Amino acid sequence: MSLTIGVDVGGTKVAAGVVDRDGHIVEKLKRFTPAASPGGTITVVVDVVNELLGRYEVDAVGIGAAGFVDQTRSTVLFAPNLAWRDEPVKKQVEDRIGRPVVVENDANAAAWAEAKLGAARGLEQVLLITVGTGIGAGIVLDGRLYRGRFGSAGEPGHYRVVPEGRLCGCGNQGCWEQYASGSALVAEARDFARRSPEAAMRLLQLGGGSPEGIDGPAVTRAAREGDLGAVRCFEIVGSWLGTGLADLSAILDPGCFVIGGGVSEAGDLLLQPAREAYHHGLTGRSYREFADVRLAALGPDAGLIGAADLARNA
Amino acid sequence: MSLTIGVDVGGTKVAAGVVDRDGHIVEKLKRFTPAASPGGTITVVVDVVNELLGRYEVDAVGIGAAGFVDQTRSTVLFAPNLAWRDEPVKKQVEDRIGRPVVVENDANAAAWAEAKLGAARGLEQVLLITVGTGIGAGIVLDGRLYRGRFGSAGEPGHYRVVPEGRLCGCGNQGCWEQYASGSALVAEARDFARRSPEAAMRLLQLGGGSPEGIDGPAVTRAAREGDLGAVRCFEIVGSWLGTGLADLSAILDPGCFVIGGGVSEAGDLLLQPAREAYHHGLTGRSYREFADVRLAALGPDAGLIGAADLARNA
Repeated sequence: MSLTIGVDVGGTKVAAGVVDRDGHIVEKLKRFTPAASPGGTITVVVDVVNELLGRYEVDAVGIGAAGFVDQTRSTVLFAPNLAWRDEPVKKQVEDRIGRPVVVENDANAAAWAEAKLGAARGLEQVLLITVGTGIGAGIVLDGRLYRGRFGSAGEPGHYRVVPEGRLCGCGNQGCWEQYASGSALVAEARDFARRSPEAAMRLLQLGGGSPEGIDGPAVTRAAREGDLGAVRCFEIVGSWLGTGLADLSAILDPGCFVIGGGVSEAGDLLLQPAREAYHHGLTGRSYREFADVRLAALGPDAGLIGAADLARNA
Repeated sequence: MSLTIGVDVGGTKVAAGVVDRDGHIVEKLKRFTPAASPGGTITVVVDVVNELLGRYEVDAVGIGAAGFVDQTRSTVLFAPNLAWRDEPVKKQVEDRIGRPVVVENDANAAAWAEAKLGAARGLEQVLLITVGTGIGAGIVLDGRLYRGRFGSAGEPGHYRVVPEGRLCGCGNQGCWEQYASGSALVAEARDFARRSPEAAMRLLQLGGGSPEGIDGPAVTRAAREGDLGAVRCFEIVGSWLGTGLADLSAILDPGCFVIGGGVSEAGDLLLQPAREAYHHGLTGRSYREFADVRLAALGPDAGLIGAADLARNA
């Protein structure tokens, strides 16, 4: 049984798992991330991997990190939630664990996992769209992970859907993630509660009495109970999501979109309006085929599983 | 010297050329297209190829057509300017010329030519954007032509840049080609001439006295003479073009955009504002690299040359 280790390095915790060929996690460990310390973060990764190496025969290690990774999959150029800047992660970890290491952007790793072992298993053109605070993405084309010329592909959250639109953290205006993310969902619900507190009574109740207290799970819960305002918030955000999928299909014509991230836990509340807008918005829809729009299957472990599988296939 | 034939099947003419390994055209023939007759169009292709086969040793034939081609590169599913509907072009031509045939979308073939033998030679991630009546495109990723799951990739002309925007021939509103094409350029100039005939005096003169007479070459000529309104038309359209390139970079991070099509003959009049908008609009521009924005090198023969090269490498 060939085993590899996948490591998911996030801003708050490091998760490392021993993964088999089918993507099953044999054992998983978690540690807090000393995110402010570049060297300290490396040391936590090394320690948790070495602990697992003491118990399993492992061939290689894949590290997924939320950040920009160079073309050679060695160096983390920039990671917004970590102190890594031009950090030679591959070399530093390899030197201290004695196994080959592959470094990959975490959304790329998750897309790989969903395409090879998850919701889109067996499909060759797959886009993973993670709908969370923002929009993340990973792209598998013709059976291979696509990274772009400079390793920066897969950021559709920052293509422009509205000229002169909402200000985005990236510095631009009108980015897709300002309209189709969890943050957009919550902003929509809070706005609604401010303008129409009586109609938003249930949302406000779940938010502890104030618009600012309304969070994503509150909107999902109210919508599941049938609250009309909350359902409409999902329709608005889902519709922006689906329109974006139509745009991505015009460009890339994938066979499948896998929708992951926290907001996707709302299931059809999000996916139904997304599919409708996608079908309505796809160019040439009368003489082409629609891509499937599916929920992610591997949950928050997708990045870890994908990193482990990429290490196996490196 | 290994030779192949490339055929470009357009709505008005069929062009066929004998092409060498370096993309040089040894001989080229043209025929009128009997576009209303599916079988007649096949016969013209067969006849022109057979004429060339009588004079050259040729290994294979590539056919580029403006339309949707199936995944197996055998059948033209739909061609807006031809009568071909589910036409098994590969089989029909192979049976009558005795050489292997590859069928490809013409913009894909042109992108392949520019990436392998033209403006982006040696680069692995290349997007060809042809700015003509509409916007066409072809995508080369990691050194391979990318077609999508159903053969419909590479239609960024129909991603949405303006919600509820201008009506497009595809049935949607706000498609990129309604803002960044030759048609958009001409519409802008005509609008200007209608609203401000005195300021648009030179444009009107070149248009034979009426706004409807203003065409693309007239706008280019006026802009080259320094006419402020005409220059501004290019700035408006070029800016929409560049914003779209920024969107495509967010998704695909190519190393090079090759800009072709009739409007690209205006050179920097179009490319300068496009580059500015691209640089201004690229997400994460402070910690990533810009793609080159280059003029196409192979002109209207790109499709023919690309089809011939694809046939060689099939």
